[in-house]
Amino acid sequence: MKHFMMACGVLVALAVAPDSTLTQVRTWRTQHEMAILRELFDLLSLPNVATNQGDMARNADALTQMLARRRFTAEILPTSGSPVVLAERRAPNAVRTLTFYFHYDGQPVDPREWTHGPPFTPVVVTGPAADARTLTLAQLTGPIDGEWRIYGRSSSDDKSPIVAFLAAIDALDASAAPLTSTVRVILEGDEEAGSPSLDAIVRAHGDRMRGDALMMVDGPRHASGRTTLNFGARGVMAAVITVYGANRDLHSGNYGNWAPNPALALARLLASMKDERGRVTIAGFYDDVVPLTAAERRAIEEIPDVEPSLMRAFGFSRQENASQRLELWHNQPALNVNGLESGTVGGQGRTIIPADASARLDVRLVKAIDPARQFERIVAHVRAQGFFVADAEPDAAMRAAHPWIARVTRVGGYPAGRTSMDLPIAASIVKALSDAAAGPIVRLPTLGGSLPFYVFSDVLKVPTFGLSVVNFDNNQHGPNENLRIENLWGAVESMAALLTMP
Amino acid sequence: MKHFMMACGVLVALAVAPDSTLTQVRTWRTQHEMAILRELFDLLSLPNVATNQGDMARNADALTQMLARRRFTAEILPTSGSPVVLAERRAPNAVRTLTFYFHYDGQPVDPREWTHGPPFTPVVVTGPAADARTLTLAQLTGPIDGEWRIYGRSSSDDKSPIVAFLAAIDALDASAAPLTSTVRVILEGDEEAGSPSLDAIVRAHGDRMRGDALMMVDGPRHASGRTTLNFGARGVMAAVITVYGANRDLHSGNYGNWAPNPALALARLLASMKDERGRVTIAGFYDDVVPLTAAERRAIEEIPDVEPSLMRAFGFSRQENASQRLELWHNQPALNVNGLESGTVGGQGRTIIPADASARLDVRLVKAIDPARQFERIVAHVRAQGFFVADAEPDAAMRAAHPWIARVTRVGGYPAGRTSMDLPIAASIVKALSDAAAGPIVRLPTLGGSLPFYVFSDVLKVPTFGLSVVNFDNNQHGPNENLRIENLWGAVESMAALLTMP
Repeated sequence: MKHFMMACGVLVALAVAPDSTLTQVRTWRTQHEMAILRELFDLLSLPNVATNQGDMARNADALTQMLARRRFTAEILPTSGSPVVLAERRAPNAVRTLTFYFHYDGQPVDPREWTHGPPFTPVVVTGPAADARTLTLAQLTGPIDGEWRIYGRSSSDDKSPIVAFLAAIDALDASAAPLTSTVRVILEGDEEAGSPSLDAIVRAHGDRMRGDALMMVDGPRHASGRTTLNFGARGVMAAVITVYGANRDLHSGNYGNWAPNPALALARLLASMKDERGRVTIAGFYDDVVPLTAAERRAIEEIPDVEPSLMRAFGFSRQENASQRLELWHNQPALNVNGLESGTVGGQGRTIIPADASARLDVRLVKAIDPARQFERIVAHVRAQGFFVADAEPDAAMRAAHPWIARVTRVGGYPAGRTSMDLPIAASIVKALSDAAAGPIVRLPTLGGSLPFYVFSDVLKVPTFGLSVVNFDNNQHGPNENLRIENLWGAVESMAALLTMP
Repeated sequence: MKHFMMACGVLVALAVAPDSTLTQVRTWRTQHEMAILRELFDLLSLPNVATNQGDMARNADALTQMLARRRFTAEILPTSGSPVVLAERRAPNAVRTLTFYFHYDGQPVDPREWTHGPPFTPVVVTGPAADARTLTLAQLTGPIDGEWRIYGRSSSDDKSPIVAFLAAIDALDASAAPLTSTVRVILEGDEEAGSPSLDAIVRAHGDRMRGDALMMVDGPRHASGRTTLNFGARGVMAAVITVYGANRDLHSGNYGNWAPNPALALARLLASMKDERGRVTIAGFYDDVVPLTAAERRAIEEIPDVEPSLMRAFGFSRQENASQRLELWHNQPALNVNGLESGTVGGQGRTIIPADASARLDVRLVKAIDPARQFERIVAHVRAQGFFVADAEPDAAMRAAHPWIARVTRVGGYPAGRTSMDLPIAASIVKALSDAAAGPIVRLPTLGGSLPFYVFSDVLKVPTFGLSVVNFDNNQHGPNENLRIENLWGAVESMAALLTMP
């Protein structure tokens, strides 16, 4: 029966016991879809690019009121950036405290790139076909197809999880099922900028955030479409490397094959950082990696293999290294070139030897790798390739003293975090989410992307989990960010399951 | 006496026989400096970016009138780009026909980058010091210091040579010295765009351009400051290489160290093109090089060694390869990275695996190297590094069939030209210019930069020479292009010497 249920969503729904909490939640949701969407649309209509402080204050106020309506006590904490909202709702006879983390800021937008209207005017689009309709909320009459999508900045990342969470509270309040946990909420406003204040806020106000478990609700589901529970997330750090040639652009005819060419030198330097099989050749890069446990390996083995379909969708035919599957690579540190910049390439071009050449690298970190130490390994590698590593723009004396000069600048960064799969609370969470999904969920030891997971797992020292509920193909961070409506409904049920865990 | 004369310009001037043609020219010039500058300023005030056809027509008209005032018959020939002006003035008892080539177009400008006012409002600046005055022509009263500079687009490249040439004609007409040559003039308007029409114009109208020798007057003097005669110029060709990864930018956390990174692949490809000593490793790259003759080698040996001072000025301490001097390298083909472009480097950056990465290379060619053949060698090298070379944007089928795809696009290009140093006319020209300079000139077998030299040397089949008269540090092609006024006066004398060669 189980296999049949997994293969057919409609039957699964019918198969849930009619009097269960989940059935009551689903029934309530089907009766309140417009109200849920209205709350989401109102929230999406508030611009939330974190550099605009006024906008962020308006978001924080709105969220505080939304929480207060659900009987949360909420407080706005100022930071050096956007405010953090902390909230709590005590449950009588609570068996634990459960903390939920969301972020309410969104990535910067370029409205000209958005196809279905401006990014802060959310709309429903009725399908991918050319004749799909684009509807405002007022135009949305009649039944709502779960395959339709809501377009708008933060529709997936990360406002819909907030609205799903609040809808789950509403559904449970309307049902006979009480919350089994005291619930705490953390709403951050600078996640897309790398969470620069979160560590300090957690150190200062940790006692009001701590729980028996903390759910970071963010990011898309695994490409298989299953509800996804992350037990960790990679850390991240960027490094900008600039290689210097002459102190100005030189005419490539007069000085080509005589003056040093920093673009070529940068190419050589980057080429020296990875071997042909994609293994990073920087000394010590993998030294601190903690191997996966048997349980972690097993969790990965249970995940459907999505690589062939991903590769088809992304249009490439060979992985950097096919010796292990994608989800295993996420448990290794990575080094990746994000960008190159030197001279001019497009248009009429300029026949110059550029004065300098720069690359931006991002370095993904896994459990137990220290960002500062990993950065020093990169610097040591640059030195070992024959560069003098400068900590400022080179002056004439430095230029006279060293044939090759590079500058290596670290940009931000934080470490990884990883929670053990063996904790009893982990088993409870997996069971609740699997029951709500009526089938297996994806369990990732480490999310490939980066979240400030460590702040909760290692600074606050709370068993921390990442829950991903939105559709995989949501155009997160780009134009045309969207949410598949069925994922919103699924999220309501996942949240309700967590809130009523025995 | 000769050495002393070379070391002291003022004494040299006095040392010229008082009744010589050069003395008469110099005397005439000192009496007409303001008139010469007025003609130059008027010409510099006409914008001459070749993409603006109206501007180019105005320049061609003005030049035609300037030539007509000196009794040239002039004609404007339309091309697919800017018009070419052809002119001729017959000399009674001419011993030969001498053709002069100049170009009247200038590089594109960004007025915001110009320090002394807009690029088409020429001014005189009285020195490099902070308290230097910036003067309009009307404000220029009293004696003119030859060290002062004229700022404006094309002040050096290439309008002042035209005005110097016309002033030399005026000076000779005012003297007792007749022109010894029938003089022909070619004024091109698309040189900065790579002379796309020149070859066709020469093939169609060569009979009206041909002479016993052709002087291409363009470019700066050798860094030693001496009058510079080029016997050839390198050819040039650009190649844009794009390496493709996925069909879109991918999240570097989700897909880093799994999806192929085209920025790193491009770095590897570029690194494969040159060895550590700067030698191009592309098979066949040097195959067709014609070695320098003994006379050519001797000419280079006689040039002052400017490398240490150039390296100090340019702020680097080691050449790409120090095994031979700069002027010898100019007789070798070169490959140089002009620019790199991929993803984002600056600002907050984007943590992506970029969809593609591009580099622009320029390839300098020397005598006997065919541009098309050299381009094919580059393509073959890219193939040999494991890339499928596409001739269009890759589609899904191509992406599925090939793990690595690159596109290599040739941009323009023309071959090199080189005239023998052993021709009798070469000896006459060297003597005339050395006499005018009252000292040795620099003779370069091949100019490092590129000029459409081959059009005259190899298509028109006329002994062709490049004459460079403007100051080396003229900011050619950049903002703040300038002319040291003394170089203008020197140019008048060089031209007069050529026009009166026995």
